[in-house]
Amino acid sequence: MLQNDLLLRTLRGEKTERTPVWMMRQAGRYLPEYIAIRNKYGFFERCQTPELACAITIQPVDIVGVDAAILFSDILVVPQAMGLEVQLKENVGPLLPNPIKTVADLARVRVPDVDETLGYVFDAIKLIKQELNDRVPLIGFAGAPWTLLCYMVQGKGSKTFDEAKAFCYAQPELAHQLLQMITDTTIAYLKGQIKAGADTLQLFDSWGGLLSPADFEVLSLQYIRQIVAAVKDEVPTIIFAKGAWHSLDKMAATGAAGLGIDWCIPANMARQFAGNDIALQGNFDPAKLLSPIPVIEKEVREMLTAFGPNRHIANLGHGILPNVPVDHARAFVNAVKEFRFEH
Amino acid sequence: MLQNDLLLRTLRGEKTERTPVWMMRQAGRYLPEYIAIRNKYGFFERCQTPELACAITIQPVDIVGVDAAILFSDILVVPQAMGLEVQLKENVGPLLPNPIKTVADLARVRVPDVDETLGYVFDAIKLIKQELNDRVPLIGFAGAPWTLLCYMVQGKGSKTFDEAKAFCYAQPELAHQLLQMITDTTIAYLKGQIKAGADTLQLFDSWGGLLSPADFEVLSLQYIRQIVAAVKDEVPTIIFAKGAWHSLDKMAATGAAGLGIDWCIPANMARQFAGNDIALQGNFDPAKLLSPIPVIEKEVREMLTAFGPNRHIANLGHGILPNVPVDHARAFVNAVKEFRFEH
Repeated sequence: MLQNDLLLRTLRGEKTERTPVWMMRQAGRYLPEYIAIRNKYGFFERCQTPELACAITIQPVDIVGVDAAILFSDILVVPQAMGLEVQLKENVGPLLPNPIKTVADLARVRVPDVDETLGYVFDAIKLIKQELNDRVPLIGFAGAPWTLLCYMVQGKGSKTFDEAKAFCYAQPELAHQLLQMITDTTIAYLKGQIKAGADTLQLFDSWGGLLSPADFEVLSLQYIRQIVAAVKDEVPTIIFAKGAWHSLDKMAATGAAGLGIDWCIPANMARQFAGNDIALQGNFDPAKLLSPIPVIEKEVREMLTAFGPNRHIANLGHGILPNVPVDHARAFVNAVKEFRFEH
Repeated sequence: MLQNDLLLRTLRGEKTERTPVWMMRQAGRYLPEYIAIRNKYGFFERCQTPELACAITIQPVDIVGVDAAILFSDILVVPQAMGLEVQLKENVGPLLPNPIKTVADLARVRVPDVDETLGYVFDAIKLIKQELNDRVPLIGFAGAPWTLLCYMVQGKGSKTFDEAKAFCYAQPELAHQLLQMITDTTIAYLKGQIKAGADTLQLFDSWGGLLSPADFEVLSLQYIRQIVAAVKDEVPTIIFAKGAWHSLDKMAATGAAGLGIDWCIPANMARQFAGNDIALQGNFDPAKLLSPIPVIEKEVREMLTAFGPNRHIANLGHGILPNVPVDHARAFVNAVKEFRFEH
């Protein structure tokens, strides 16, 4: 039914005529068409209005020609649905003015009815699927529980998320209660996304790489495992735990169909750690999109060669930077599309 | 001559009665005694006044009982000596108001006479050695050329240092000219530190982990190699390239005596990558010092057991956080000192 199902076939382990390509944060600030919408509507207004979320989601499909759309939303809609106030300030980042520090704070948080609190996301997905009209698959997503806890406890972005960690080390029972509540909410949320039409899902553990391997298992992976188990039989799932190269083997064992990797691990090591039965997604250095176009094209060819023709989804190793020229993003996508492996 | 030479003996590969311990940024903001000095003098005044640098350097030896002192200074004194204006704002970070972007900018930078421009550091080292009176060794240090380039080009701290990277990708010849000038300055600077009395040296490549493994070789490691080669026969040298676990084997091959590692790599993998002929330094999660003291003590024992009795220097995996209570820092140090391996 889909005209371009390269991404889904790669996630199923099938051979494809070429490597599929999309970019994390592709629906975002490097696009003048996105900025035009941003200048008129607040962040959550854009997320909560299906027509706006739909227009933004489809922009990069039309403008840079990626092989998949990813829902325009934010991982922090889940803490918001759970009862926490979330503010998103342009060019500053998220602010949760009443973060969770104590048992009393935890009592303010609930596992919500997702249709009631996040129905606008499901409506957006339905509209996007209709507007995409089977051109490319739609990726749904959620934040991993550890990464959401980071924001819910720290209350804002951080280089170290030391307050979130201190909360987990000092009050482990409370931390695990919260992580389980986030997990339960996320499972319901992702099932709702699937029901609305998402073709595949990505879990973003943006701060997984801040944890030691032992803490990553306890505070992050055991919850990711529950989520993947709950959805993997319905749609293929991609885990992107930035920086957590040390646990690629364990993440592969969850039953995920793909693993996102950043640019700080060579392709052959990632493949060795993850094993042969899973797709790898990445891993172009986002800052390299600021290079001259011939450098981008050369580096894309090197990346594709390093990963080889099978079970690879070309992507950046993290979100696209806001100062990337659109023609550089397009050069990245086109370089992937034009590459052919020699037989 | 030294009463406590555990650190130096560990760096030479000798067996020791216990594991030595110190903490990155141990002379810093978590100490009320440091804050008292900071409230009276500006940052560079503290660096440039040997009596102040000496007092700050020795504080953690007296207050928390570490096995080594590390010179109080900043890696940005080198760009300053090379002709760039550097401002250090408390609680904000560094600002270089005229960063390097073009050939013309590069012409403003020189390889300076280090005795003329950095003599105050050598004077501080002489005074510290005298005041330490052979209690513990003194560690000198410098920033690795890549990390210094990051600040000299970006002009301030950054999560991604994308402008510094773009400079290197778009103008590689200029970048390598600058990296070589930093390298030449750093070699002269470190030789001056040795002559003044530094017992060992650490090279901080704080942003090495932002580079892909291939870029790390080209933009960082080839310059680190020159520096280590120039000083390693005089004093043992430790390389700390945060996050660059993928190149531990190459760093070990430079002739360094020790490698710093962060908490995101398990001890056994670090040992496997680095080989058996080098000391490993680390790798306690700095945020874990915010845990209750019994948790700190338990985790220290686990760390020491994981690294084993030989060729390990206990340290944090990054600098100590400003919000760590002094008695937690002391608990960390004491837990290392009290631990004995069973025979």
